Amino acid sequence: MIEPKLRPIGVIASDLKSLAEAPRQGAEGAPDAWLEIDPSFAEALLGIAVGDELLVITWFHRADRSVLRTHPRSDPRNPLTGVFATRSPDRPNPLGLHAVTVRAIEGHRLRVGPLEAIDGTPVVDIKPVLR
Amino acid sequence: MIEPKLRPIGVIASDLKSLAEAPRQGAEGAPDAWLEIDPSFAEALLGIAVGDELLVITWFHRADRSVLRTHPRSDPRNPLTGVFATRSPDRPNPLGLHAVTVRAIEGHRLRVGPLEAIDGTPVVDIKPVLR
Repeated sequence: MIEPKLRPIGVIASDLKSLAEAPRQGAEGAPDAWLEIDPSFAEALLGIAVGDELLVITWFHRADRSVLRTHPRSDPRNPLTGVFATRSPDRPNPLGLHAVTVRAIEGHRLRVGPLEAIDGTPVVDIKPVLR
Repeated sequence: MIEPKLRPIGVIASDLKSLAEAPRQGAEGAPDAWLEIDPSFAEALLGIAVGDELLVITWFHRADRSVLRTHPRSDPRNPLTGVFATRSPDRPNPLGLHAVTVRAIEGHRLRVGPLEAIDGTPVVDIKPVLR
């Protein structure tokens, strides 16, 4: 079996510099941000256009991978729930899934939004939304 | 930074035994299948119920990670396209993203569908669909 080790394909450049500033979901007021794709993967962007809807997969590098249950939205009034039934970043494989629209393209940099992931978050995949 | 190394949380048990049998997308006639979640992650399933819509993230262990451009749907009549603009399983980080409905739950096994991934495919994450 191929070793399931991710290679970051790029990184997020965002005005969100800390988790405390970041909204819980993109649709909750997140800003636009840049996906700075590594030049070695730039040719994999061919065909992406301004206005496209994409799914960006990130690696929440600050996550706690030992968490299996959580109170959704960190609100103790919400019942304890398995992380696979939530979007908590704390989970065994802390993959973030972000639905964004492409605002601009500059070479191997994509301006996308809304995106709640913080500055410096590794990007591991980009996929088109299926219709 | 936390090492971006995935830990499989389970495996797919499916009647699809080979890539040749597998449809390209779940909505293209894929069968239901079992997600056999490792018992050590079972408590992270709390709150998932029959009828829920989930996003299952898999690791396409048979993928070619060196592919950056492809002819969509392996049809040479389609123009060469960057893999980040396609759902090709061949991509730098071969993550599969599958929208499924929960059909049944038996302990730490979830019956879900439709699912085009083949028998033995590692599962790395499960998330609820956001509404």
